Amino acid sequence: MNKMVAEIIGTFVLVLFGTGTAVLGGGIEGVGILGISMAFGLSIVAMAYCIGTVSGCHVNPAVSVAMFVNKRINATELGLYIVGQLIGAVLASLTLYYFLVQSNLSTTNFGQNSFGALGMGGAFVVELILTFVFVLVIIVVTGKQGNANLAGLVIGFTLVLIHLLGIPLTGTSVNPARSFGPALFAGGEALTQLWVFIVAPIVGGILAAIVGKFVFDTESGKESIANKQID
Amino acid sequence: MNKMVAEIIGTFVLVLFGTGTAVLGGGIEGVGILGISMAFGLSIVAMAYCIGTVSGCHVNPAVSVAMFVNKRINATELGLYIVGQLIGAVLASLTLYYFLVQSNLSTTNFGQNSFGALGMGGAFVVELILTFVFVLVIIVVTGKQGNANLAGLVIGFTLVLIHLLGIPLTGTSVNPARSFGPALFAGGEALTQLWVFIVAPIVGGILAAIVGKFVFDTESGKESIANKQID
Amino acid sequence: MNKMVAEIIGTFVLVLFGTGTAVLGGGIEGVGILGISMAFGLSIVAMAYCIGTVSGCHVNPAVSVAMFVNKRINATELGLYIVGQLIGAVLASLTLYYFLVQSNLSTTNFGQNSFGALGMGGAFVVELILTFVFVLVIIVVTGKQGNANLAGLVIGFTLVLIHLLGIPLTGTSVNPARSFGPALFAGGEALTQLWVFIVAPIVGGILAAIVGKFVFDTESGKESIANKQID
Amino acid sequence: MNKMVAEIIGTFVLVLFGTGTAVLGGGIEGVGILGISMAFGLSIVAMAYCIGTVSGCHVNPAVSVAMFVNKRINATELGLYIVGQLIGAVLASLTLYYFLVQSNLSTTNFGQNSFGALGMGGAFVVELILTFVFVLVIIVVTGKQGNANLAGLVIGFTLVLIHLLGIPLTGTSVNPARSFGPALFAGGEALTQLWVFIVAPIVGGILAAIVGKFVFDTESGKESIANKQID
Repeated sequence: MNKMVAEIIGTFVLVLFGTGTAVLGGGIEGVGILGISMAFGLSIVAMAYCIGTVSGCHVNPAVSVAMFVNKRINATELGLYIVGQLIGAVLASLTLYYFLVQSNLSTTNFGQNSFGALGMGGAFVVELILTFVFVLVIIVVTGKQGNANLAGLVIGFTLVLIHLLGIPLTGTSVNPARSFGPALFAGGEALTQLWVFIVAPIVGGILAAIVGKFVFDTESGKESIANKQID
Repeated sequence: MNKMVAEIIGTFVLVLFGTGTAVLGGGIEGVGILGISMAFGLSIVAMAYCIGTVSGCHVNPAVSVAMFVNKRINATELGLYIVGQLIGAVLASLTLYYFLVQSNLSTTNFGQNSFGALGMGGAFVVELILTFVFVLVIIVVTGKQGNANLAGLVIGFTLVLIHLLGIPLTGTSVNPARSFGPALFAGGEALTQLWVFIVAPIVGGILAAIVGKFVFDTESGKESIANKQID
Repeated sequence: MNKMVAEIIGTFVLVLFGTGTAVLGGGIEGVGILGISMAFGLSIVAMAYCIGTVSGCHVNPAVSVAMFVNKRINATELGLYIVGQLIGAVLASLTLYYFLVQSNLSTTNFGQNSFGALGMGGAFVVELILTFVFVLVIIVVTGKQGNANLAGLVIGFTLVLIHLLGIPLTGTSVNPARSFGPALFAGGEALTQLWVFIVAPIVGGILAAIVGKFVFDTESGKESIANKQID
Repeated sequence: MNKMVAEIIGTFVLVLFGTGTAVLGGGIEGVGILGISMAFGLSIVAMAYCIGTVSGCHVNPAVSVAMFVNKRINATELGLYIVGQLIGAVLASLTLYYFLVQSNLSTTNFGQNSFGALGMGGAFVVELILTFVFVLVIIVVTGKQGNANLAGLVIGFTLVLIHLLGIPLTGTSVNPARSFGPALFAGGEALTQLWVFIVAPIVGGILAAIVGKFVFDTESGKESIANKQID
């Protein structure tokens, strides 16, 4: 139960601070791509060393599915984590809605993801690649050959990186919960395109779990020789 | 006594470098939201590994109250810490005043906080949420399940994050001392609105202390099983 | 074999996210020098703690040559690493080409390096100095007196630094693979100038390996007295 | 001797990348205050984990004087360090001169420091305060109660912070060597004002050494109780 509360808080922070910075900071013209990227990434740094002590700080269904594929959580936990993540994301967009109304600002922009100029196929490929890279880093750095101590910093900085490339393309989802909350409040195109930002990240995450396990030996208990020599 | 000196120095650095960068760097149009956010956050990184060796680097009455609620400091220390923090903040704004006068610049902007477009209620809610998140990270990462070694980096980066969202809203207080110094010198609205930037952060900090203790087990001596499995 | 796959993935990420951020983010006028620099540097942070567990995360022929000079890898590994790096870089530019076509954007800019206003000689000297500094940091921090735990963060932040100075000059190569992929797709001047971005980084890397070995004692098994006293 | 070579390389990197980014990146209008600040700060991160293994990475006469005051280096080392730092800084400005000439750019701006709008007295106070804060962090984090492992990151991020506030004021020296090299090449006002950027940092550094020793117990072998409780 504490784990679910932790995931609610963590996803709330990620979605509120990430999308909130994009919307309230004036978007690419204001705080800029780097500022928005930092907001998403530093949310992970903050939460990894906070809720991470209880839930491991997934805050992302694509991450939880990858963890399930590699047997780090069971089916019940998977369900509870995803429900918590969706609740946290909706609460975040609700809070952003409150901020916008209080500030007399338009309530059309919630930092929702979109296909942009890419079209459906292009957006799907972009999200699949971005999530594959993101979850591969997560699954390795939190794995048996990884670095538990620095994992939160590394994963957070990786999410900054993912946004630097992805913001001009799809706005960067790599996280079905992060797309779900804003889409509910923005409605319209954000809702009809939502399935891509659910399916593509999950497929990318599953691929990363498999590559992590078989190429990077993330689930084995014994340290590989390669690791001993170099790392 | 050394602890109080440490808190004076630390709060002086936080308020001088944070508000000074905002005022002298040309605000959002100049150094930008990210630059100002970095100044506040990196002040914490610098001070955590400096004065933190003596006082723990609270530099914020809301943090000290939260530490008191969770019995990490006693009432005498709480008093000394808060007095030191207020002294440090006033010295910082005095120094900024000196810089402005020497540079022949206007002495109306001291980086004071304000309700902005939000109104009193909105500003209160914003500050409560921002401080809750900030102090929750602090109370967990410096707690029994936390990471003492990286705490300064994590808390500093979290304060960068808090400012990325909060600057367009209230300018971000989350710290009664940080609002007190500039308000004294700016006067007017900054003084009449000051109570919100004192009360809301303290309430947010107390809530974080309680959630930290009961959900994240921050005060217990034994490592939880969840922590062992994942972190 | 896993090492080669790791180098393919790592170089793919470095070149796709680095050059992709520059091209899609609007270059110096858009995401800016700092944003592009962060994309290159954080790619190294991400990959160091990911593929680094298998291959050591060279993702750069100049680094692999330096490691070979100091006998950390053998000739067979050197060959496999470089082939993997070139494959990864070409796949990255191919992916960027796909993103550009899908977005109906011009396919003339792949983030290729160029002499800029410097001319051949100036560009050669710039790349030699930049790579010397970059590889010297790598060879020391991953060496016997180094800090294996933080190496990925330090090397990544160093690459941010290298780009801050180098982007206005040559666009910053310091990595033959990073120049090779984009040059293949951009063609023209990028191809005729490519040899400088291959030869200068390799010469800079070899010099760094030698200075590292003899001045910084990177290959010795015993900790130096100087190191014990200060570090 | 290796220590002096290390200080030459380290100061060369700090001054070339710091001032070079400011000059070639278009200054505050181009790469911006944050970008320039990052260049100076990340130079320290890179060099701390590189030359730091041999010389401790002072790269700054004010730091070396502070270390001498607290008896961490002797008079001979102090002399060799400062000579090395001045050589490194001059080589850096010479290299920047070469880059500017090769690029057909004006050779009037070498990133030199100046009083700006402050006048001599104001500039002196600014540099004294900035250097006091900078060296206090260094002397504590590398001291007996400090964190040797993270020191390079902490000191580098502190230098980012120092520049965020100081660039709009004096351009930020806090380092006589960093002012010396550019002043030699820029000439004129930079040379006549140079003494302030030599004397003020050294006075600030000496004060920091004393406060560090007596308030933060930086030179004592035994861990203080305060440190054990909180850090």
